[in-house]
Amino acid sequence: MPPFDVPEGDPFGPHNLPYGVFSPDGSSDRRVGVRLGDHVLDAGAAARALDFPHAELLSAPNLNPLLAAGPAVWAEVRAALTEWVTRPAHREAVEPLFHELAHVTLHLPFEVADYVDFYASEHHARNVGQIFRPDSPDPLTPNWKHLPIGYHGRAGTVVVSGTDVVRPSGQRKAPADPAPVFGPSIRLDIEAEVGFVVGVPSAQGTPVPLTGFRDHVFGLCLLNDWSARDIQAWEYVPLGPFLGKSFATSVSAWITPLAALEDARVAPPERTHPLLPYLDDSAPGVEPGGYDLRISVAINGQVVAEPPFSTMYWTAAQQLAHLTVNGASLRTGDLYASGTVSGPAEGQRGSLLELTWNGRDPLELPDGKRAFLEDGDVVTFTAWAPGKDGGRIGLGEVEGRIVSG
Amino acid sequence: MPPFDVPEGDPFGPHNLPYGVFSPDGSSDRRVGVRLGDHVLDAGAAARALDFPHAELLSAPNLNPLLAAGPAVWAEVRAALTEWVTRPAHREAVEPLFHELAHVTLHLPFEVADYVDFYASEHHARNVGQIFRPDSPDPLTPNWKHLPIGYHGRAGTVVVSGTDVVRPSGQRKAPADPAPVFGPSIRLDIEAEVGFVVGVPSAQGTPVPLTGFRDHVFGLCLLNDWSARDIQAWEYVPLGPFLGKSFATSVSAWITPLAALEDARVAPPERTHPLLPYLDDSAPGVEPGGYDLRISVAINGQVVAEPPFSTMYWTAAQQLAHLTVNGASLRTGDLYASGTVSGPAEGQRGSLLELTWNGRDPLELPDGKRAFLEDGDVVTFTAWAPGKDGGRIGLGEVEGRIVSG
Repeated sequence: MPPFDVPEGDPFGPHNLPYGVFSPDGSSDRRVGVRLGDHVLDAGAAARALDFPHAELLSAPNLNPLLAAGPAVWAEVRAALTEWVTRPAHREAVEPLFHELAHVTLHLPFEVADYVDFYASEHHARNVGQIFRPDSPDPLTPNWKHLPIGYHGRAGTVVVSGTDVVRPSGQRKAPADPAPVFGPSIRLDIEAEVGFVVGVPSAQGTPVPLTGFRDHVFGLCLLNDWSARDIQAWEYVPLGPFLGKSFATSVSAWITPLAALEDARVAPPERTHPLLPYLDDSAPGVEPGGYDLRISVAINGQVVAEPPFSTMYWTAAQQLAHLTVNGASLRTGDLYASGTVSGPAEGQRGSLLELTWNGRDPLELPDGKRAFLEDGDVVTFTAWAPGKDGGRIGLGEVEGRIVSG
Repeated sequence: MPPFDVPEGDPFGPHNLPYGVFSPDGSSDRRVGVRLGDHVLDAGAAARALDFPHAELLSAPNLNPLLAAGPAVWAEVRAALTEWVTRPAHREAVEPLFHELAHVTLHLPFEVADYVDFYASEHHARNVGQIFRPDSPDPLTPNWKHLPIGYHGRAGTVVVSGTDVVRPSGQRKAPADPAPVFGPSIRLDIEAEVGFVVGVPSAQGTPVPLTGFRDHVFGLCLLNDWSARDIQAWEYVPLGPFLGKSFATSVSAWITPLAALEDARVAPPERTHPLLPYLDDSAPGVEPGGYDLRISVAINGQVVAEPPFSTMYWTAAQQLAHLTVNGASLRTGDLYASGTVSGPAEGQRGSLLELTWNGRDPLELPDGKRAFLEDGDVVTFTAWAPGKDGGRIGLGEVEGRIVSG
């Protein structure tokens, strides 16, 4: 089917237009692409053919120049792309510049500067607290409702969807073991998350307020924060997760601009504790910071969970305000992730740790039980958001296969 | 004094030759420089003048191309530089390419990829444990002697020596407070550390063994891991330090190549616990991984501590092996720091937290008492290492002044 004739109701229709980086089959050069249905538009080629003033931003080997250009340019580029893929007058010029998705290679769409991972789902944090501290009166740590807890992860091991994940080796120690042992992780897990991509940098020493979110953040993607629970458990006191997470983090190949998600904006859950002013999103003039994203988690094609992003306690705008309130600067390409998305229901949990209650209740899959991941398992996250007139905006999938180390 | 006539015994003599990036006064272009005494050689200009085959590596605006080139090229470049600055035959060609240190601006010498901070001093870890868990039978956590504990920090806020540090604001909560309060940190601290700079990258999924240290690591620098203790104390459970550290990390402007520190190599302290094979530096064929670096910490010009790097329990080679054992890849420009260097004696502690025992015993400085840093305070770390024939190899200083936010 020709690209312009994307079916009505396709989640990658002309209201979506996420950005990625691709190489056509047989080529190694990287080009900015925009997805329409099951095609990719060579955005740089289209911009040059139509004498678009920002053609240079779309002719780079990654999205970073576009990310850095800021909200006014993002809007101009999106408006232009929308015209090119919808106006019959452009069809003749633009249609030859599409490639079938099946005939391109998709790359990591931007150079990751710093990577931060948050812990923003109350349901997830409560589940984890109950699993690891069953006797504690409160499964949440005392700071949890006062600030979005986060930590820095490894930017250099962020990989694009489709990249195999090598099972990590490391130290683990069961409580009864006299000393740690070394070997491949036996508790390899997933974390279904949403990642936010920073476009516009900020100066060191100058915090970004809650209301600055959309001046700095370009868009979002699905993200799998692969986690080796055995390595993590032994190493993480007192300085946090390190090797249990740093071996790989997968992101979808498509970055959905925030502009495509206007109809998915929702208020976050009611706040149970008063917030300090820099985090108070109930203040006048602060827009609701939640997004209604319906995530689906599949292992070897079988859906095992459907985490709802709208249930996240801390929003991406609050995370950005917190991240910078100490004066830490932002760079183009900074990536920060939500933390595991888990809803209140059992089938809405975004990690195997929670879904199997730390291995106690293995999942029943067609090919056997799963407490944690086995070699060869393929994990796929997909998601959609409400769009205009009951339509859907699809997020790019993030997929990875576990291979032995 | 002409640059060639650097005095005998100068810690920045021709046996040292650290690398940096500078701009001459009145110019904004960034050039690779090599320090000799109180001068900087424009290394790219010298290489071009003398038709050196690797001139391109020395003509970049930062050290990253040289870092990526690997040990064989590092040795060729160092041998050539040594010739240029010592052979009278080169004097006429090279001497005009020196600039006085007083007439250049020094820049961050390399683009930082990922930044990791370790916690490798047993004396520091014991002090911290005793301060925060006075009733615990063992001040070390159970994992401490089995692995070098580390975490990722913020690469985007690594700044060069001489950059002012804005006092960070954030949440803090004293145990008796009913809720956290927000404001400028009132417990702003230093951490005297040594940072290691990765040159040669490694592939994701492939660990770097202990014996690979010198194939990947180019050199080292002094590093100040500024720490807001009040922010850190409230935020760090359960995922580790975040905003208490991410506002700024200062590094010296000069990267000392490992090749300049051959005479400073020492065996690390005796290991009290057996190590897993990937960390066992007592195995045959593994070189001793310690370095004898004598650090000096001054506040407003007064020396307050002299931490000895030779006392570090975990070596940089062990840290690199640990960092990658899960398959995490290295990139050119990765920076990893030792953690606070503290020796066994009271005057050898590398943080105010330890020097003042969490503020209980303030330092007496000429301008008053100090529990933690005040606005206007200037903190300077210097260091030297034993060189050939009783000489000294100087490390570049790292200095920063606290300014109010």
